[in-house]
Amino acid sequence: MSTNLSYYSQSLTKLHGICSTSLARTVASGALNGYRVRRWSSCQTAPRPPGITHTIFSGIQPTGVPHLGNYLGALREWVRLQNDGTEGTRFFFSIVDLHALTVPQESIQLRKWRKEALATLLAVGLDPSRSTIFYQSTVQAHAELFWILCTVASMGYLSRMTQWKSKLQLPEETTLENSTARSKLRLGLLSYPVLQAADILVHRATHVPVGEDQRQHLEFCRNIANSFNHTYGSIFPCPEALISPAKRVMSLKEPTLKMSKSHVDERSRIILTDSRDQISKKLKAALTDSDMKITYDPILRPGVSNLLELLGHFEGKSCEDLALEYQSTSLRVLKEHLAGQISDHLQPIRDKYFSLMDDKTGFLDAVSEQGARSARANADRTMEVVRSAMGL
Amino acid sequence: MSTNLSYYSQSLTKLHGICSTSLARTVASGALNGYRVRRWSSCQTAPRPPGITHTIFSGIQPTGVPHLGNYLGALREWVRLQNDGTEGTRFFFSIVDLHALTVPQESIQLRKWRKEALATLLAVGLDPSRSTIFYQSTVQAHAELFWILCTVASMGYLSRMTQWKSKLQLPEETTLENSTARSKLRLGLLSYPVLQAADILVHRATHVPVGEDQRQHLEFCRNIANSFNHTYGSIFPCPEALISPAKRVMSLKEPTLKMSKSHVDERSRIILTDSRDQISKKLKAALTDSDMKITYDPILRPGVSNLLELLGHFEGKSCEDLALEYQSTSLRVLKEHLAGQISDHLQPIRDKYFSLMDDKTGFLDAVSEQGARSARANADRTMEVVRSAMGL
Repeated sequence: MSTNLSYYSQSLTKLHGICSTSLARTVASGALNGYRVRRWSSCQTAPRPPGITHTIFSGIQPTGVPHLGNYLGALREWVRLQNDGTEGTRFFFSIVDLHALTVPQESIQLRKWRKEALATLLAVGLDPSRSTIFYQSTVQAHAELFWILCTVASMGYLSRMTQWKSKLQLPEETTLENSTARSKLRLGLLSYPVLQAADILVHRATHVPVGEDQRQHLEFCRNIANSFNHTYGSIFPCPEALISPAKRVMSLKEPTLKMSKSHVDERSRIILTDSRDQISKKLKAALTDSDMKITYDPILRPGVSNLLELLGHFEGKSCEDLALEYQSTSLRVLKEHLAGQISDHLQPIRDKYFSLMDDKTGFLDAVSEQGARSARANADRTMEVVRSAMGL
Repeated sequence: MSTNLSYYSQSLTKLHGICSTSLARTVASGALNGYRVRRWSSCQTAPRPPGITHTIFSGIQPTGVPHLGNYLGALREWVRLQNDGTEGTRFFFSIVDLHALTVPQESIQLRKWRKEALATLLAVGLDPSRSTIFYQSTVQAHAELFWILCTVASMGYLSRMTQWKSKLQLPEETTLENSTARSKLRLGLLSYPVLQAADILVHRATHVPVGEDQRQHLEFCRNIANSFNHTYGSIFPCPEALISPAKRVMSLKEPTLKMSKSHVDERSRIILTDSRDQISKKLKAALTDSDMKITYDPILRPGVSNLLELLGHFEGKSCEDLALEYQSTSLRVLKEHLAGQISDHLQPIRDKYFSLMDDKTGFLDAVSEQGARSARANADRTMEVVRSAMGL
């Protein structure tokens, strides 16, 4: 069973077809430069709190320390959005521990993973004074809105969605007509997109950094927001997908698959807390083809292309330029250089992570309490409006 | 679409096959005399708060002022349980407004119905100093536990339950394989039994006054409590059904059907706020057969038998005894006497109801706030234990 850490995405797609990440992005009023903002038609608009032009929400599942794919595809993008955000932009980043319960969890493990996720978010650069960082389970309004959206959500629509099938390792064409599917399926897994919609809507998010694999869920969220607004008045902004320009990171051992926590070979992924030595060893063992030359061809040469893409993430250059730069060297040189770049980049993150995990002053608890208070206040404001509109 | 006011039951079944209600019932430690306590095997036990031997929970949907069937089948029984309860027994009675959302609601209507339901509960004799009386929507922990139970609830089990089919007016043999059913069905209606289980379990109820029609839901609740306890330890008591001895009240116009809010003819039901004159007129128009004699035969003579059963509810006599008592009189005399009895019984309820509805001192708001505080405190205690057991 897949246990992706990233909730919405670890595979944010590239905007311009080049592997360098665009460095200059600003969240200015009315524009999220560098990001592909997916707009749908037929969306009603809703009033926003005074002074607030954008509300950005995203979530991450607590499944241990993230890997490089989670980081480059999602976490680093969140930090950039936060750091480039204008005054009118609010940020909510949630460790979605209620979602984690849709697959069996050991309570000791989950408790550990939650803490690790929080330490990671701070270590990569999310700042509690600029972003609301919170555990989903500390804000009851998420579940409250979840129930309310359940009364709107159509079973036909939910049964057609793909994630519950992939989590149960059922073919994509499976329907609820299949009694084996029904007997394996828990209501929570089928309802996952509804809780996700509640997460987004309870904070009245206008933009959601999202990966291609989660786009179906965001469309569902928009659909349910529209249904609700149609019945009860214009309560929810219709959130827009924010498709990151970052290219997705592939497995070091099977470069046609994306880097994943669930791959059986640990060397297939780099974890943010890996040491310089571990990173070097994993890259040395990275699968490439028998051709020793360095060229960029993601289709025919996925292994070496993935290494060039990874390097592009850190050097801000296109893969084609990097291929030219390294054409007269060897794969060994490229791998060593890349290992150094990754290690250098991760070093301060790793240091901060371990210092946070070792902290005895209750700092992480204080951050989570502050986040819970702020998220509760925002979500409860929404719920007051929702309850009033519904006659509750 | 049926809009039953009573959540769990308006058709509590008779224990002894006689129509008189047993007057002496006490909720003594370890025994709920007069009630049929349905015990299942294979139930794990859970620790109870110190000094508490029983926790009784039931709920009522806000769908306007209840009719006589709701009152005799459920509300009067709740009041009796409350008044006969020993010190170690706690009572939670909820106006389940979140459940009301599973069918389309006008917000103005719902707001009015919620208030009417609260006034009714107080008017019939529930006492806020002895029972916790609260709106479900004011206690977020109900929805929080709902999500958690969703992660345990099996889709196969839920799809076999009958209520969502009857609410959608689909045949009982309908399954989720039916695409028409899926397209009509909202997730909230399918999930109704899971929220009901959360209502019961979040208050760690040991006993639930329940009608025959809701017994399937209570079995589901017990099943889910056992599944949860099996995984996370002994958290929830396994609640037992409390089958009331009261016989169900039939329609005055179609005495083979139970009295219902949804019947097209208003004269088929007596509402608790009906005036003496309205009650007299409705009884005069009550359907009986062409035989003018008074005999008790529920199968062959449902109309006159229903009148005798109604009288039995107020006079504490068996229907056979009443038939003998009235055999030399006329149907007119029986109807007039019954109308008088009902009116006399309802008069103080009606008076209290209108005085509560007219009150300008904020009394109902104060009661609902007190109830919300007390219910929140109890439910939040449960959720602390639940979260801790799950690693949240």
